[in-house]
Amino acid sequence: MTPASFVDAQAPAPSFPDAARSDPAALGWMVGSPPPAEKLVQFANGSAYSFPHLRWSFSNFRQLVPTTQVGRGIGAVQTLPRRAIESLGKLEFLPLGQSVPMNWEDSLAATYTDGIVVLHRGQVVYERYTGALKPEGQHIAMSVTKSFFGVIAASLIAEGTLDETRTVASYVPELEGTAFADATIRQVLDMTTGLQYSENYADPKAEVWAHVRAGGVLPRPPDYDGPRTFYDFLRTVKKSGEHGQAFAYKTVNTDALGWVIRRVTGKSVGQNLSEMIWSQLGMEQDAYFTVDSVGNEFAGGGLNTGLRDLARFGEMIRNNGCANEKQILPEVAILDIRRGGRKADFAKAAYPLLPGWSYRSMWWITHNDHDAIMARGVHGQSIYVDPKAEMVIARYGSHPVAANGANDPVTLPAFHAMAKALMKN
Amino acid sequence: MTPASFVDAQAPAPSFPDAARSDPAALGWMVGSPPPAEKLVQFANGSAYSFPHLRWSFSNFRQLVPTTQVGRGIGAVQTLPRRAIESLGKLEFLPLGQSVPMNWEDSLAATYTDGIVVLHRGQVVYERYTGALKPEGQHIAMSVTKSFFGVIAASLIAEGTLDETRTVASYVPELEGTAFADATIRQVLDMTTGLQYSENYADPKAEVWAHVRAGGVLPRPPDYDGPRTFYDFLRTVKKSGEHGQAFAYKTVNTDALGWVIRRVTGKSVGQNLSEMIWSQLGMEQDAYFTVDSVGNEFAGGGLNTGLRDLARFGEMIRNNGCANEKQILPEVAILDIRRGGRKADFAKAAYPLLPGWSYRSMWWITHNDHDAIMARGVHGQSIYVDPKAEMVIARYGSHPVAANGANDPVTLPAFHAMAKALMKN
Repeated sequence: MTPASFVDAQAPAPSFPDAARSDPAALGWMVGSPPPAEKLVQFANGSAYSFPHLRWSFSNFRQLVPTTQVGRGIGAVQTLPRRAIESLGKLEFLPLGQSVPMNWEDSLAATYTDGIVVLHRGQVVYERYTGALKPEGQHIAMSVTKSFFGVIAASLIAEGTLDETRTVASYVPELEGTAFADATIRQVLDMTTGLQYSENYADPKAEVWAHVRAGGVLPRPPDYDGPRTFYDFLRTVKKSGEHGQAFAYKTVNTDALGWVIRRVTGKSVGQNLSEMIWSQLGMEQDAYFTVDSVGNEFAGGGLNTGLRDLARFGEMIRNNGCANEKQILPEVAILDIRRGGRKADFAKAAYPLLPGWSYRSMWWITHNDHDAIMARGVHGQSIYVDPKAEMVIARYGSHPVAANGANDPVTLPAFHAMAKALMKN
Repeated sequence: MTPASFVDAQAPAPSFPDAARSDPAALGWMVGSPPPAEKLVQFANGSAYSFPHLRWSFSNFRQLVPTTQVGRGIGAVQTLPRRAIESLGKLEFLPLGQSVPMNWEDSLAATYTDGIVVLHRGQVVYERYTGALKPEGQHIAMSVTKSFFGVIAASLIAEGTLDETRTVASYVPELEGTAFADATIRQVLDMTTGLQYSENYADPKAEVWAHVRAGGVLPRPPDYDGPRTFYDFLRTVKKSGEHGQAFAYKTVNTDALGWVIRRVTGKSVGQNLSEMIWSQLGMEQDAYFTVDSVGNEFAGGGLNTGLRDLARFGEMIRNNGCANEKQILPEVAILDIRRGGRKADFAKAAYPLLPGWSYRSMWWITHNDHDAIMARGVHGQSIYVDPKAEMVIARYGSHPVAANGANDPVTLPAFHAMAKALMKN
């Protein structure tokens, strides 16, 4: 089984139905009393991860697997002020490698956008939803999840709870004898660890298969006898090469970081997220995590949130940890992320569409002329923070191709064009 | 396997550890990174339903099984005004069959209360939490769920969408040939159907086993070949005796009603609950339903809510469907429930602790001198609406004995004493 969401980024993209023809509401997934058999989306048979079914799953993960609450608390909702600028839909930009401009509205279908919110100076200037996502629903953030782990860890470092120079195993002795024994917290945060861990989903022996099956992210074959929790999988990860030499994006780093966060705080990552962030920002909705059988969050991509709440979080990052006139997270932690990581380390990973970028504390740093930073997840999940344009974009999507290389040629120029347009408003 | 929550109410109660010694927080269920094996609560091995583990499960069902959101929407929270009256903790009352008074505070431990909120004229006068439940968390409502189905259906009847004199099968032709073929909506709502359906959990052949296994409420044995959804189970229910003769509390009536609601509205019960009620009351938190593999809500007991939100709902019922100066539900629907059902029908069910009560639209009507009505779920889940005292009590609990007969001797006089005390305030 090779669910679409885990297809190798390098494989030639098959032809997929476009956004309108794959619209999950129009296709009627899980609609009916009961839904007819051909409209069922199920975890056990893998249909939840196949395209176009995944366009429904991404807004309904809690119906497929166990989850834990990331509580908003019981306080007031902080209203998002609105100043809609309808002309933004007609904004034109040139997709990478194209000679014909595209307009913003068309870019939404091109990227299979489920929902997008653009904030300018904290006000909603543009907001759209399609398909299965509603303003009052939640969508899976995929690897945007990692950036939340990064912010939590960076904040724990800033307040002295966590020492970035110490090794992972010094916090989690269970990881002695693994690749994480001598990896520092900083190396894990910046993904410069040397790990024997392949995310090549085309290879049935790739370690990522064991990883996601261990956590119950994918169904297990009947004869499965591998690790049964994320932690059990972490204990099998071997070193390959040296740490601290190059950026290498490997999901398992975030799981290791999650174990450290849980150990030093004595609380689940979800509890930390609720206490440090979710209950502090006047969120509209609870968020939730998909979890393994012992309650460990899927660090690689298990957070699900409302889109507008994701935007609220991005706005707090834009304001260096400040929201509603309160310093929610240590300013020094956010400034460190915004400064970015070592470009030379990043260059070794050879992302042709991300030239001159770096990676810091599980955030992607563009180092463009606006100093924009991103949280990025497969299939198009994004938080885009543009300090110069005082803009935040939160986008959830369900692109048929997992790797963001498939949507970046549209996404990156579109977001930058939006920033430039807003600077004139 | 006979999980404690399904133990036959008539069996002699074994001796259980008291509330303090079974406190889930103190016992540390699912705490640790990872939790040690002996602290795990799991669905697959049935530990989730055993005592004292269930004291954790009841506040964490979403971590055990698939769930769907009952959205609060994205609007403002309607603040619950507070006017704490600390002296209420010392309130004394005489438990049924006892000669020594008990005080209110002691009654919480005696009933394994996880949380309780008392509203007087819409203000919070008393609020307590213990164990695994927090104000910002959700707890399973068990059969209190049924009263939500009842209110939704009563409202659909009041607005003319549903005709209480028509048969179930006239709405859901799939139920032709079952006990529901000639049962009217009203008979299902008042549970006066004649069904071959035993809820005697001591009998391994009781139909309730097939019912809950069909819906995935309980784990299935490896060789399971029975129905795999609630609807599939409903199609197996046979008639026994005549409809409309006597009250007989059988969970499966609510599942049948759920199918009707879904069919006539074209929306899931959860969507109906969100649109008609949850998004209308300024709730603090989303609620959620546990669902079967095709997304059918567990009508018998699958709703999970914040306790304060449960109290907000009760307060709206007390105000005959009105909240925040808006008529949320048809007044005539709530008035009909409050008037109650036929006492003679109820008497045939022989509840020794509930003399003179009746059952109407899935609510329990006390017909006491305050005209109080209740929503009731196993293990002590309650909404108690006392119009004369202008009082609403919402309580979540995790009593070791499922049947409310185990806590009613304390609960019922305690609630009535509270009402009388508040009438003097």
